[in-house]
Amino acid sequence: MFVHTVFFWLNHPDNQADQDALRAGLETLKSIDAIHAAYIGKPAGTRRAVIDYSYDFSITFIFTDQAAQDIYQEHPTHLKFVADCAHLWSRVQVYDAVE
Amino acid sequence: MFVHTVFFWLNHPDNQADQDALRAGLETLKSIDAIHAAYIGKPAGTRRAVIDYSYDFSITFIFTDQAAQDIYQEHPTHLKFVADCAHLWSRVQVYDAVE
Repeated sequence: MFVHTVFFWLNHPDNQADQDALRAGLETLKSIDAIHAAYIGKPAGTRRAVIDYSYDFSITFIFTDQAAQDIYQEHPTHLKFVADCAHLWSRVQVYDAVE
Repeated sequence: MFVHTVFFWLNHPDNQADQDALRAGLETLKSIDAIHAAYIGKPAGTRRAVIDYSYDFSITFIFTDQAAQDIYQEHPTHLKFVADCAHLWSRVQVYDAVE
């Protein structure tokens, strides 16, 4: 499997409209068929020195292989999400891992 | 769901015995019943400016809720993994996210 993890930091995390807009955009991604399993998250309440909980949203999307993830990257729904929402975030950090 | 993601950087990434030892230790974690789905990964071949591929291993463990993850944290198999393998890594970075 191929695990695509992204952390998003908002430009204005105290702005509820921005929070709602990013969540709504992320939710649209779940409709993309190439995704095997999709998790959209916020930082949990866990607090240890090794835990980074500074981000505003995370996605963990599981794909059967990299080819499926490549389809996702170029999917119109994904491209529309980036076009619509990129102004909301100050930083994204991506980790792609394969089993 | 609760998504527990950990990235590991080895002290000696060029040492195959250390690579094998950490992988073997990570594989033992999959036997812990509290885990709903477990993915053990290495960096994929994807290369973009926003992708961090500097780590040596990742785990993405899905739990039904934080209580299940708390059971995992205290499980003897997890504690033995940390005791046996902590000397292998120079850094761990954890992200806990809840839907």
